[in-house]
Amino acid sequence: MKNWRRYMHQHPELSFEEVHTAKYIEEKLTEFGLEVKKQIGGNGLIGVLKGEEPGKTLVLRADFDALPIKDEKDVPYKSTNTGVMHACGHDGHTSALLGTARTLSKFREKLKGNILFVFQPAEEKPPGGAKFMIEEGILEDVDYVFGAHLASDIPLGKIGIGEGYQMAAVDKFEITIQGRGGHGARPHHTIDSLVIGTSVVEGLQKIVSRSVDPLKSAVVSIGVFHAGNAFNVIPDTAKIEGTVRTFDGAVRDQVEAEINAIVKGITSGFHADYEIDYLRGYPALYNHKEETKTVHGLLSETFTEEDIVELEPTMGAEDFAYFLEQKPGTYFKVGSQNEDEATHYPHHHPKFDFDERALVNISKSFAKIVSHYLL
Amino acid sequence: MKNWRRYMHQHPELSFEEVHTAKYIEEKLTEFGLEVKKQIGGNGLIGVLKGEEPGKTLVLRADFDALPIKDEKDVPYKSTNTGVMHACGHDGHTSALLGTARTLSKFREKLKGNILFVFQPAEEKPPGGAKFMIEEGILEDVDYVFGAHLASDIPLGKIGIGEGYQMAAVDKFEITIQGRGGHGARPHHTIDSLVIGTSVVEGLQKIVSRSVDPLKSAVVSIGVFHAGNAFNVIPDTAKIEGTVRTFDGAVRDQVEAEINAIVKGITSGFHADYEIDYLRGYPALYNHKEETKTVHGLLSETFTEEDIVELEPTMGAEDFAYFLEQKPGTYFKVGSQNEDEATHYPHHHPKFDFDERALVNISKSFAKIVSHYLL
Amino acid sequence: MKNWRRYMHQHPELSFEEVHTAKYIEEKLTEFGLEVKKQIGGNGLIGVLKGEEPGKTLVLRADFDALPIKDEKDVPYKSTNTGVMHACGHDGHTSALLGTARTLSKFREKLKGNILFVFQPAEEKPPGGAKFMIEEGILEDVDYVFGAHLASDIPLGKIGIGEGYQMAAVDKFEITIQGRGGHGARPHHTIDSLVIGTSVVEGLQKIVSRSVDPLKSAVVSIGVFHAGNAFNVIPDTAKIEGTVRTFDGAVRDQVEAEINAIVKGITSGFHADYEIDYLRGYPALYNHKEETKTVHGLLSETFTEEDIVELEPTMGAEDFAYFLEQKPGTYFKVGSQNEDEATHYPHHHPKFDFDERALVNISKSFAKIVSHYLL
Amino acid sequence: MKNWRRYMHQHPELSFEEVHTAKYIEEKLTEFGLEVKKQIGGNGLIGVLKGEEPGKTLVLRADFDALPIKDEKDVPYKSTNTGVMHACGHDGHTSALLGTARTLSKFREKLKGNILFVFQPAEEKPPGGAKFMIEEGILEDVDYVFGAHLASDIPLGKIGIGEGYQMAAVDKFEITIQGRGGHGARPHHTIDSLVIGTSVVEGLQKIVSRSVDPLKSAVVSIGVFHAGNAFNVIPDTAKIEGTVRTFDGAVRDQVEAEINAIVKGITSGFHADYEIDYLRGYPALYNHKEETKTVHGLLSETFTEEDIVELEPTMGAEDFAYFLEQKPGTYFKVGSQNEDEATHYPHHHPKFDFDERALVNISKSFAKIVSHYLL
Repeated sequence: MKNWRRYMHQHPELSFEEVHTAKYIEEKLTEFGLEVKKQIGGNGLIGVLKGEEPGKTLVLRADFDALPIKDEKDVPYKSTNTGVMHACGHDGHTSALLGTARTLSKFREKLKGNILFVFQPAEEKPPGGAKFMIEEGILEDVDYVFGAHLASDIPLGKIGIGEGYQMAAVDKFEITIQGRGGHGARPHHTIDSLVIGTSVVEGLQKIVSRSVDPLKSAVVSIGVFHAGNAFNVIPDTAKIEGTVRTFDGAVRDQVEAEINAIVKGITSGFHADYEIDYLRGYPALYNHKEETKTVHGLLSETFTEEDIVELEPTMGAEDFAYFLEQKPGTYFKVGSQNEDEATHYPHHHPKFDFDERALVNISKSFAKIVSHYLL
Repeated sequence: MKNWRRYMHQHPELSFEEVHTAKYIEEKLTEFGLEVKKQIGGNGLIGVLKGEEPGKTLVLRADFDALPIKDEKDVPYKSTNTGVMHACGHDGHTSALLGTARTLSKFREKLKGNILFVFQPAEEKPPGGAKFMIEEGILEDVDYVFGAHLASDIPLGKIGIGEGYQMAAVDKFEITIQGRGGHGARPHHTIDSLVIGTSVVEGLQKIVSRSVDPLKSAVVSIGVFHAGNAFNVIPDTAKIEGTVRTFDGAVRDQVEAEINAIVKGITSGFHADYEIDYLRGYPALYNHKEETKTVHGLLSETFTEEDIVELEPTMGAEDFAYFLEQKPGTYFKVGSQNEDEATHYPHHHPKFDFDERALVNISKSFAKIVSHYLL
Repeated sequence: MKNWRRYMHQHPELSFEEVHTAKYIEEKLTEFGLEVKKQIGGNGLIGVLKGEEPGKTLVLRADFDALPIKDEKDVPYKSTNTGVMHACGHDGHTSALLGTARTLSKFREKLKGNILFVFQPAEEKPPGGAKFMIEEGILEDVDYVFGAHLASDIPLGKIGIGEGYQMAAVDKFEITIQGRGGHGARPHHTIDSLVIGTSVVEGLQKIVSRSVDPLKSAVVSIGVFHAGNAFNVIPDTAKIEGTVRTFDGAVRDQVEAEINAIVKGITSGFHADYEIDYLRGYPALYNHKEETKTVHGLLSETFTEEDIVELEPTMGAEDFAYFLEQKPGTYFKVGSQNEDEATHYPHHHPKFDFDERALVNISKSFAKIVSHYLL
Repeated sequence: MKNWRRYMHQHPELSFEEVHTAKYIEEKLTEFGLEVKKQIGGNGLIGVLKGEEPGKTLVLRADFDALPIKDEKDVPYKSTNTGVMHACGHDGHTSALLGTARTLSKFREKLKGNILFVFQPAEEKPPGGAKFMIEEGILEDVDYVFGAHLASDIPLGKIGIGEGYQMAAVDKFEITIQGRGGHGARPHHTIDSLVIGTSVVEGLQKIVSRSVDPLKSAVVSIGVFHAGNAFNVIPDTAKIEGTVRTFDGAVRDQVEAEINAIVKGITSGFHADYEIDYLRGYPALYNHKEETKTVHGLLSETFTEEDIVELEPTMGAEDFAYFLEQKPGTYFKVGSQNEDEATHYPHHHPKFDFDERALVNISKSFAKIVSHYLL
């Protein structure tokens, strides 16, 4: 697994452009004697392992795209594709899943049911690769889905597990307020898009402070407010961009609806026009209770109860959420930090790296899960 | 005039209730041999002086209602009607106009044209007496209208004159924001009328700061914001009351329209209902340029040029404005302050009083104006 | 237990005034042969049951005050103290704990450790009775604390259990903004407390929308905004009252600090003075994880696993929180609803009532807990 | 005058760079036999005409800089200095004043007093040329100052005159709000400069709506609000730029002070830092009452009373204001529009032009004023 990982680390490819990596995975899967389905929803591919006996069908999933980051590590397996880097550990996820596939392919005759080893491209870039693979129907006969992520903030040997909503839905909005510009000395001849825009920002604060159930989480953050170019000219247009983070789907719908209502109401009150472009990103990632408990139990055997870390939800995003929207399962984290500071950098850092023994832990975890559901 | 004034000062009557005072004025006018038209638009009455020769028709106007103020002066002519007081000088205006009528009634044969001595009730209380008298048609054949007001901040012997808008239009508005109340711990189950109300107040600031021509005057002030009774209950309803002051009629219309637009827009943005009750009070008082210049010239002869004080506009109100909306003319101030501090109190003060020689100055001023237009 | 409960139901006493009820409890405890400590932190009292053998010390707690509500039920045991009513079930809590005490007093020789049967007054009225009892040192040698509450929204036979923060900390704030009043036509002569107040309300929205961790809960609701009495007079003073709800103690501190900072900053920006009166109510109620799991396990034996309902946190408050701030333990709910609609009214409703068999369930639950920790 | 004007029109020079034009003016003044003082406060120069008899000293002023505008006219005298154009008529002002100087220089022996023909550079670009010339002491022994401006919105033959404040003081402000940026999903780790900035903009509205005397004019307009570059990143810094327009000096001071107070108060309330850079531009231009009346009277003789147009104040700016701050005088407008649409373009338009007969009217006006004060 180490060699595979290092090869991929040296040859990273950006989201939606992972042609070479897909080929590499295909070769390995073929080598293991698995049936390979390729070019599914883009560069996605699946290694199919059919057990001798009937039973459940499991998805084990890894992602394999890299990031537009310049590798700053000083290691032999440094990226050779300048400006592109496996800075999130997807090379590790893929290697570990390949390793799992190789191992399990030897137990075909004992398997009651099937395993789909799903290699998914384009996790880093919405709309993401998961959505397109699922639209191809890959989950149709699937019973459970499982995924794992390396975690540089969890020590090697420990596993992070959490039930319920664990990662947020991430949406983006762009609001354009169209007023009528004019000279700063004559505000009465204008429709002051800038001041209307600031009123809108004030109004948007009330979604979280007043409209959302305080027992549920939501964020409405504005990252961009651009209006005007000259100190003495009232601008025609104000441009506002921001992000919405939610867990609960109803809250997500509610926040979008409130943004629309507030922008419409305030602009109409001041005679301006507006446009809203609201883009839904990945949904919230929900770890199903029963399967999460089961995995918790299984992994506290593979490791020990003390090695299981209870995860708190975060506002980050992950497109494995699409799998968990469709089928029961869970997404867990596998510690990859050792004493060496090289393994302490956060994900997406230009010096990100991990203890490669974590790949074995991913693989052991997947094997344990398979043994429970399919043996 | 002094005796009449003191009699009226002792027998003040509130706006719209000046029955006895009207009777008193009627007796005097009859005594002077003038035709009297009474009960015009309420307690109003007119003494008609028709000249022997044809010519213009002038209105000279005085008001005669008193205020709900307790007279705190220690003088023999103190109010005998407890809690009611001529604290604005209307007793003086009426006496001076009666004096003018008596004098001019002796010059009937020299007059080219007619004088209407208009005694108007209810100046102090919107909708005011002027409006109702005018609705009876009293200005139909009138050419010019003139009025005078005592001024405790101008020294005796001086006359205040100013052209253009001199006093503001005064409107009142009441806004009710209807949300849906509920427990403070569950804002998401409510429509928070209080917070919507504060947004409305913020929005209303922009009428003056953004929408009104900065070269024109306008005020939107809020006097009342009432919402809620318990710290932990989000209120159903927020009540907002305020006043609008403007000079220019187009600005007045604009401010009312903006209030409507802003309240509608903001409440709709936050799912609340609303009601607006917008009540127009007296219009702005506009002294016509030509007649004001003419009166300025005339009175600088009756007095001296140095005695003419140029008036600055104020945000106060006066229903003689209705007369000046219909016909050209001017409204001027006659100084009533002497060295005695008793004459220094502002109008509407419970100790307000004036130097009674000012009545002669009003009368001389009116006579001079008449001599110019009708002799 | 039913008779005791009905007696107390007929003789309810308001918070801090429960003299007669305390006497009644004292008689019962004495009758059961327990040592009684009375007048602890007011009308509080404790029945002490010392086991023969050494061991842990447990608190079992019930509250016994009633509410200022007029009893509207038509039952033989209706309140005889007009306008005062046991509308929250405290009569039940107390009867059940008395019953528990009677039963357990017979097992003294088997007990390893001690039980404090804590009867607490004044739960309904901050600052509450718990605080004062604890200040007397009653928890000094205590190891665990447990309490139970009847729940009209949970069916008879079921038990509600939840770990972590289950009920919110409840604070109250009063803000007075001191400006300088004046005529509505002359805002430039005033410091407009009303408009400054609306800016403060807008500012306070940002505590929840921007400053509080979106993964933690907080509410800042304003229940009262009172400023001004006349539409055309800018008021001197604006009065704002509201409530803060939080779970996490650090968030609670943060919200209070932010309120102070925002009010100070905004008033200073507009030249006004202010006062803030921030009153801390009950803290958040935190069910300790380990003890909650233990009780869950125990009661799924007493009842069945299916009878255990997982509780979601609520924004309500309860002063048993003070006990759980000091010592590990848990607070659980005992279903009291049957098919009869009379048992469906929410707590604090004038017709509130419950299935009295729930008292047996409380008692059995307490006994089970004691058997685990002290046998 | 026409030739001079056309020569200058073909050779325009930008503000503070008018070396050649100054030389040209110097030659003419020398040719007329006037004493020339040059390089006063930069490229400024003065032609001194001393009368034979003692008397008052008058300043007649013209400006001579051009604008960074590309001349789009199709005329023989089109600008030969690409991208620079006399698009405001300063070439006309200077030619007309040169013509006046030539004419009056022949009447030296009749003059009672002195004339300073002031040719001022850099009117178009704050801090402007007037300030620097005056700092050289040129107004020390001066009694009156007069200036004229061509007006493409006034017909040829008409003169615009207005007393009191006629043009606004123009200031510029730049506010930088320094927060602490961070990820949009974690607002609680940031100090959200963008939202603090929008609160500041809301706060600034209240300067005009609440703090400034409604009978006086003021504008606070914001032309620029720039914060952030990415929709999901809360920005470190918000940048706000705007302009302040006032007439009254006390109001100007007040607005600047309020901006400081509001920005300081609001940023402190939300833990941000700030910087304000407030730059004072030209003061308000005040036409002194007496001299304005005098000039009105004089010019209604040179032209007719009907030709005198009463000017309304505007929110534009002009650095002749510095002269009128120091000495009594007036600034009037001279109509330059004829039927030809070429003369209808507004000032600063790339096709701006005027009827050159207006130069004669400026010259005649100046001569009439001189005849009144010095003959």
